[in-house]
Amino acid sequence: MTAAPTPATLGDVPASVTAELETFFAHAVPQTDRISPVVGEAASLLRDFVLRGGKRVRPTFAFAGWLAGTSHLDRSASVQTPAITATDALRICAALELVQACALIHDDIIDQSDTRRGHRTAHREFEAKHGAAGWAGDAARHGVSAAILAGDLALAWADDLVHGYPPGGDAGHDPTPLPPRVARTWSAMRTEVLGGQLLDIVNEVSGDETLDAAYRVMEYKTAAYTVARPLQLGAELAGAPTGFVDTLHSAGRRLGIAFQLRDDLLGVFGDPTRTGKPSGDDLIEGKRTALLAEGLARATQRDAAVAQRLRSAIGRPLSDAELTDVRTILVEVGAVAESERQISELLDAAVATLQDLPIGDGIRADLIAAADRLAHREA
Amino acid sequence: MTAAPTPATLGDVPASVTAELETFFAHAVPQTDRISPVVGEAASLLRDFVLRGGKRVRPTFAFAGWLAGTSHLDRSASVQTPAITATDALRICAALELVQACALIHDDIIDQSDTRRGHRTAHREFEAKHGAAGWAGDAARHGVSAAILAGDLALAWADDLVHGYPPGGDAGHDPTPLPPRVARTWSAMRTEVLGGQLLDIVNEVSGDETLDAAYRVMEYKTAAYTVARPLQLGAELAGAPTGFVDTLHSAGRRLGIAFQLRDDLLGVFGDPTRTGKPSGDDLIEGKRTALLAEGLARATQRDAAVAQRLRSAIGRPLSDAELTDVRTILVEVGAVAESERQISELLDAAVATLQDLPIGDGIRADLIAAADRLAHREA
Repeated sequence: MTAAPTPATLGDVPASVTAELETFFAHAVPQTDRISPVVGEAASLLRDFVLRGGKRVRPTFAFAGWLAGTSHLDRSASVQTPAITATDALRICAALELVQACALIHDDIIDQSDTRRGHRTAHREFEAKHGAAGWAGDAARHGVSAAILAGDLALAWADDLVHGYPPGGDAGHDPTPLPPRVARTWSAMRTEVLGGQLLDIVNEVSGDETLDAAYRVMEYKTAAYTVARPLQLGAELAGAPTGFVDTLHSAGRRLGIAFQLRDDLLGVFGDPTRTGKPSGDDLIEGKRTALLAEGLARATQRDAAVAQRLRSAIGRPLSDAELTDVRTILVEVGAVAESERQISELLDAAVATLQDLPIGDGIRADLIAAADRLAHREA
Repeated sequence: MTAAPTPATLGDVPASVTAELETFFAHAVPQTDRISPVVGEAASLLRDFVLRGGKRVRPTFAFAGWLAGTSHLDRSASVQTPAITATDALRICAALELVQACALIHDDIIDQSDTRRGHRTAHREFEAKHGAAGWAGDAARHGVSAAILAGDLALAWADDLVHGYPPGGDAGHDPTPLPPRVARTWSAMRTEVLGGQLLDIVNEVSGDETLDAAYRVMEYKTAAYTVARPLQLGAELAGAPTGFVDTLHSAGRRLGIAFQLRDDLLGVFGDPTRTGKPSGDDLIEGKRTALLAEGLARATQRDAAVAQRLRSAIGRPLSDAELTDVRTILVEVGAVAESERQISELLDAAVATLQDLPIGDGIRADLIAAADRLAHREA
C-alpha cells in the first residue's frame, strides 16, 4: 500500500488518517468485488461510512501518543530509534477508525438509530438498497443482517490494517511485526470497548441508575477506548519507557471521562444540526448516563414527584415540551453544573500532568489544545 | 498460556483444540469479569458455546495442512525447520474456531434460528437471561444486541489468539510473529467468509436461483473458509513451498465444495436429532443452495407446475406433508442424484491429488480419511 503523508502536527492527523483509509479501501473494495459485485457494493458502503468519518479522535490521540513518545525519547540522554516508523505508526493509528466503524455500525443496530453523522445509519442504508432493488422479504431485517456483516468486516479489517496487511490476501510488502506490548494494548482495547458496550446494554435493561454503573461504562466503553488506550498505544509504538506510558495513560483516562461527560450533556442539550443526532437522543434511547444518574439521585433527594417525572422520560419518544421539562429538571437539581464541574476538574488534572511531561513544547501545546477541544466540544 | 498437548494424529486434533480453547477462555473470562460480572457472564456464555463446539473441521484441516507441510519438508533433500512450533501451530489452528463462533452467532441472528448444536442459539440464550432476570424492555431485542457484541468479541479474540495474545492485555509471553504469508491467508479467509455470507443473504432476498449464484457462495463462504484456506494456512505455518501449498489448496477447494453439497443435502434430508437443526431448515430459511438451484432448473424443464410447487416452498414454514413433497420433487427430478454424483467426483479428484502429494503415508491416510468423512457425513 502506498503510504499517506505523515502528519507534521496533530492538526494534520485527521486528513492523513483519511488518506490512509482511502488507500486501504482502494485495495479492499476490489478484493471484495472479486467475490461478487454485491459484496463490493457493501464494502463501498462501508468505505463511504468510514471516509465520511467523524473527528478521528482516536487516531489523533494515538498519533499524539506517538509524537509524545518520540519527543520524549529525543530529549532523553540515550537517543533511541522508535520501534516503528512514522508511516507505520500512522497506519496503525488509522486502524482505530475501523474498530470504531464496527462499534458504531453495530451500536446503531442495537440502538435502532436512523441517522449517524447526518446520514442514514448503515442498516438503514442497506434497508434502502433492498427497497430500491425491489427485493423480496423484509427490508428492515435485511438491512440489519447486512450491517451486522459489514461491521464484522470492519472489525476483521481493523486487524488486517494494524498488522499491515491489505484485506483479501494481497501480497503487498511484509510489514514490521507489531511490538508485543502494542499488540497487548490493541487486544485490551478491543475487549474493553466491547465489554463496555455489553455492560451498557445490560445497564439499560436492568435499569441500573447508580452513578457507579454509569462510571463503569464510561471507564471501559469511552475513557479507555477513546483516549487512554490510544495514547498508550501510540507511546508504545514509539518505544517510550513504561513509566512515561503510564503517566500518559492516566492523563488519557481523565480526558476520556471528561469526553464522555461532555457527550452525555450533548446527548440531552446538543444541537441536532451540529451533533448529527436527534434532540435528546440519549434520553429516548434510555441511555444510563452519569448525567442522568446524578440528576435522578439529586431529584430523589429533593422531590419524589420530580424524580418520577425524570425517570418516566427515559427510554421512550419525547415531545418537545417533555424534553424541555427534562432539561429544566437536570439544570435545576444541579446535575448539569456538577457535570461541568467534573469536566473542568478532570481537564485541569490532565493538563497538569501534560505540563509536567518531559516532552517538547510543540507536542505539549498540541496535546493540551486537543484535550481542551475534547472537553469543550459542541458536537 | 499453558500449551495444550500437541496432537499426534489428526484424530487427536479436536480434543487438543478444545483444550487450547479452554486455556484461552480461562484467561479471557476473568479479564472480562474485571470489567463487570455481567460481561464475565457473557464471556462465559461465549465460552460454553465454543467449548460445546462442533466437529472442529476447520482447525482439523489446518492442522492437517501443518502435518502435511512438515511431513513434506522432512522428506525433501534439505531438511528445514518449520517456521513455527507444533504448539504455536495448534494455537493458530484453534483460533479458527473463534472466527467460526462469530460467524455462527451472527448467522443465527440473521437466520432467526432458535437452536444450534441442539442448544439455544446465543441470541435466544441472552434473551432467556433477560427474561429470567426480569429486566425491562424487549427481551428478544436485548438477546440480539448482546449476541451481536458476543460475536464481535469472538472475532476480536480470534485475532488475539492467532497472534498469541490472551485478551485483555495480559502480559503472557511474547509469541513468534505470524509469518507474513500466513497473515495474508488469515486475512483473505476472514474477508472471504464474511463476503460469502453477505452474498448469501443478498441471493436470498434477490431470489437469485441460478446455480452460478449458489456456487459463488459455496466457493467463498464454505470451500475457501472451511477447507482450502485452513489447509493452506497450516502448510504455510510449516513453511512448505508455494507449489506444495497450492496443490493442497486446490484439493481443499474441491473438498470444501463437496462439504457444502453434503450440507445442502443434510439441510433438506438430514435427521434433526443428528444435525441439531430443525427438519428442512435450509428450505424454511430460504437458503439458495446448489441443490435447490439444480432442482428448480430441472423441474422447470420438465413441468412448470412442479417447479412452482418447489419455488413456493422456499423461505416459509412447511408442514410435514409439504416437506415430504419437496423432498420427493428433489429426488424425482434427479437433483439429489446430481449432488451425490458431484460429491463423488470432487472427492475422487481431491483424493487423487492427495495420493500424489509428496508426504508421509501416515498423514496421507489421515487426510484421505478426513476427506471421506467430510463428504459422507450424516450430521
